[in-house]
Amino acid sequence: MANFSDQELDSSASAGNGLLSRRQWLRLGAGGAAASLVAPVWAAGGTSVEPWRSGSGAPPSQYGDQPSLASLKREQISAHPFGPQAGASSTPLQFLNGTITPNGLHFERHHSGIPEIEPSAHRLTIHGLVKQPLSFDYEALLRYPMVSRVLFMECSGNSYRNTFTTVLDETAGGLNGLVSCAEWTGIPLHYLLDEAGLDASATWMVAEGADAAGMNRSVPLSLATSDAMLALYQNGEPLRRSQGFPMRLLVPGCEGNLSVKWLRSLKVMNQPAHTREETSKYTDLQLDGVAWQFSLRMGVKSVITSPSGQMQLPEKGVFEISGLAWSGHGSVRAVEVSADGGRSWTEAVIQSEVGKHKPVRFRIPWRWNGQPAVLQSRAVDSAGNVQPTRSQALQNVAPGFSYHYNGIQSWRVNAEGRVSNVHA
Amino acid sequence: MANFSDQELDSSASAGNGLLSRRQWLRLGAGGAAASLVAPVWAAGGTSVEPWRSGSGAPPSQYGDQPSLASLKREQISAHPFGPQAGASSTPLQFLNGTITPNGLHFERHHSGIPEIEPSAHRLTIHGLVKQPLSFDYEALLRYPMVSRVLFMECSGNSYRNTFTTVLDETAGGLNGLVSCAEWTGIPLHYLLDEAGLDASATWMVAEGADAAGMNRSVPLSLATSDAMLALYQNGEPLRRSQGFPMRLLVPGCEGNLSVKWLRSLKVMNQPAHTREETSKYTDLQLDGVAWQFSLRMGVKSVITSPSGQMQLPEKGVFEISGLAWSGHGSVRAVEVSADGGRSWTEAVIQSEVGKHKPVRFRIPWRWNGQPAVLQSRAVDSAGNVQPTRSQALQNVAPGFSYHYNGIQSWRVNAEGRVSNVHA
Repeated sequence: MANFSDQELDSSASAGNGLLSRRQWLRLGAGGAAASLVAPVWAAGGTSVEPWRSGSGAPPSQYGDQPSLASLKREQISAHPFGPQAGASSTPLQFLNGTITPNGLHFERHHSGIPEIEPSAHRLTIHGLVKQPLSFDYEALLRYPMVSRVLFMECSGNSYRNTFTTVLDETAGGLNGLVSCAEWTGIPLHYLLDEAGLDASATWMVAEGADAAGMNRSVPLSLATSDAMLALYQNGEPLRRSQGFPMRLLVPGCEGNLSVKWLRSLKVMNQPAHTREETSKYTDLQLDGVAWQFSLRMGVKSVITSPSGQMQLPEKGVFEISGLAWSGHGSVRAVEVSADGGRSWTEAVIQSEVGKHKPVRFRIPWRWNGQPAVLQSRAVDSAGNVQPTRSQALQNVAPGFSYHYNGIQSWRVNAEGRVSNVHA
Repeated sequence: MANFSDQELDSSASAGNGLLSRRQWLRLGAGGAAASLVAPVWAAGGTSVEPWRSGSGAPPSQYGDQPSLASLKREQISAHPFGPQAGASSTPLQFLNGTITPNGLHFERHHSGIPEIEPSAHRLTIHGLVKQPLSFDYEALLRYPMVSRVLFMECSGNSYRNTFTTVLDETAGGLNGLVSCAEWTGIPLHYLLDEAGLDASATWMVAEGADAAGMNRSVPLSLATSDAMLALYQNGEPLRRSQGFPMRLLVPGCEGNLSVKWLRSLKVMNQPAHTREETSKYTDLQLDGVAWQFSLRMGVKSVITSPSGQMQLPEKGVFEISGLAWSGHGSVRAVEVSADGGRSWTEAVIQSEVGKHKPVRFRIPWRWNGQPAVLQSRAVDSAGNVQPTRSQALQNVAPGFSYHYNGIQSWRVNAEGRVSNVHA
C-alpha cells in the first residue's frame, strides 16, 4: 500500500490470450501503451483555449451532491407493480474503481420504502431473554466506543438473473450490482447485549426494523456477539436514510437482508422466529426437494468490472482488466483471471489491504489481439473455498431458486470489441 | 480489523481525569453506560406507532444525493470579496466518524471556481525535458494499470486560524476541516513519465490545471516518480468536478495545493518554476526573516473530533473521545490523549489499518466527572516526529504566517459541559 514498486504490483505469471504481468506491460514501452504523440499539436502553438479555461466556474458549496457524469447512477431499479416502494437498485460496478462504493451509489433493497425517521423519537429496544430490558436513544448510542471496518454487503439475490437459462446482455452492475462496499462505523453489538445481560438459554435474536414493513430476521447469537455491530456511520457520515438512518444492524459476511435497517428491536430468544423473510424467501431449494434455511454467509465471489457487459473496446491493444472480489467465509486470498474462457489462469494483483469480509480490487494488464475472447475471474478465500463455475454453482439447485449464487461471471469480447455476458 | 476482541481494542493504560481503557469501560457495566431502562415503557404495552412505521416511504433512486441530516454540510465557506469562485469550504469533522470523508463533504479550495470540463475534449500533455512529448486523452488513460490508496489530503493553510492570538470559538471542522480522507485510484505517475522518457537533466516538473486560473505548482521529480499518481477516481467513483474531474495530480503526504486539479500539463524541467503559488504564498516566513520555500510535506498531526468545539455534553458520564491523525512523513505510529491539559497522557486505540500517509481514527473512553477539563491529542509518526504543542509549533514563525501549522488542538469542557476551543 505504501510506495508501489513494480515488483510489488506484479502478478506472478501470465496466462494465455494476452494476459500480462505488470513487468511485461512496462516492457511494451510507448508502443504498447495508449498515448498519442503530441509533437505536431505542440508545434502549432496551441492557440485554442477550451471554454472552461476562459472564465471562472462554480464556487464552493455546502454539500456536493452531483456526480461528474450524468450516466453515473444506480440501475436495474426494480419495483413491485402494486407498490413501487418495495424495490431495489444496483450499484453501477462498471463505472467504479477502487473498493469503496460512494454512499449515493450503494445498492438498495427496501420492503416498504425509506422511512423518514426523526432520530430523537427513535429507540432501540433490547428485550426477551435478557436480565434487564434496555432502551437506547440515538444520542446515548453516539457516546459508546465504536469500531470502523471496510466490508462488502451483498444481497442474497445478487446475480440471480445469471442463473436464468436465457443469457441477458446487460452491464456488470445490472447483473451483479446488488453488492456494495463501505467503511462502516458503529458499536460492537456485544457491548449492548452484555449490558442487557443474556440469559443462559439465549441462542438467537430477532432483529426488526422501523419501516412500515417491520422487516425482521433471526440472527444466531454466535454471529451477533462476535462480528456484528450496530452501524451508525457509512463512509464517514451518519447513515443515509436509504441505508438505515439512524441505525442498522450489520452482520459482516452474511446476506444483506440480515443487516436490518432502521433497527428498532432486538428480541433475544432460544430459537429462530421463522419470519416471512426466512421461510417464504431467502432459502435454497435443492433438487432433492429439501430447502436450506439460514444459509447466511455469502460465498467467495468475484466479478470483472472492466471490460464488462455493453462496453466497447475501441481498438486492439492493452487494457487493464480489473474487478472486485469478496467472501463471507473469511478474507480473499487470491484472484485468478482467464482470457481464454477458463483454459488457462493467472493470478491477478490484489493491491488493496486484505481483511476479513473486506472487498478487494484485483488488476491485471491484458493485450487484446482483436480476436474473440472470454474473460473470467475466480476468487479463492482464506478458508480455501474456490469460486465455482456457473454450472457447479447451479448443480444441486432447483430451477428458479437462486439465492446465494456465486458462479463465475464470463464476459465475451467479440471481434468488433463488443463485450457481452455469456454463460461459460 | 477482523474480529474485534476487547484486548485488541484496549489501550495500553489510562491517564488522569477520567481516561479509561476499554477493559475499564466494560467493567463499568450498565451503570456506567448510557442506556435507560425500558421496563416501564414495555409494561405499558407500547401502543403508539411512530408515523414512519404506519405507511410506506420513498422508493429506490438513481443517485442518492441527500445526507440524512440537514446540518451535515461543509462549513466556513470563504470566498474572495471580488470573486466568490476563489474560495474554500471545510469538512465538518465533528459530524464524521471512521476515516473516509464522503465525496460530498471533501474540503474544497478553488482559485477560479470549478471548470465544467468536457472529458472528451480534455488532454493531458507531458512535455519539456522529455525524449518524446506525449498527449493523453481520458479514454486512453482509463486503460492504464492503476492503484488504489486511502490517503489524507490537507490544505497547507489548514488550522491557520488557531495561530491567531484571538481564540476563536468554533467547531472542529471550522477550525481544522481543510483536511479530508479518501480512497484515491489512479495511474502511478512514473508510468506516464517513463513513457515520455525523462531527460537525464530533469529534476522538477511544473503541473498546471485547466481551470481559468491555470493554477500551477513545481513538483520535485523525486516525488513525482515515486509516490505520485494521476488520480481518476475518488471513493470509487470518477472524480467529482470539485475535486478535479476528469483528472488531478495526487502527491501523497504533501500540501493539497501540490495535487493540481483538472491537470492539463506536466512540463519537465531542471529547476522549479517559482510560480505565484510557491513564492507569494505557501512559504513559511521565519522570525529571522528567511522564508522557507517548498516545505511540501505536511507534519504529523491529530485532532479530536468528538467531543469538540461548540458541542454540549448532556450530563456527567462516559463518552468516547475520538479523532483523526495523519502524517506527511510516514504512517501514524501512535496517538496519545490527555484529559488534563497535557499533564498526563495515555495511548488511544488505533483500530483502523495503519499505512503511509493513511489517516487513522483513534478512540478512547472517557468518564467526565462534571469538572472542567482540557482534552488534547498528540500524534507520533513512523519517522519519530511528535506533534508539537501550539507554542512549539509557532516558536520560529513570523506572526501572521501560518502555513503548515500542526500544533496540538485543545478543547476545554466547562462545568456546564460546553466544549470550546482554547489555546493551551
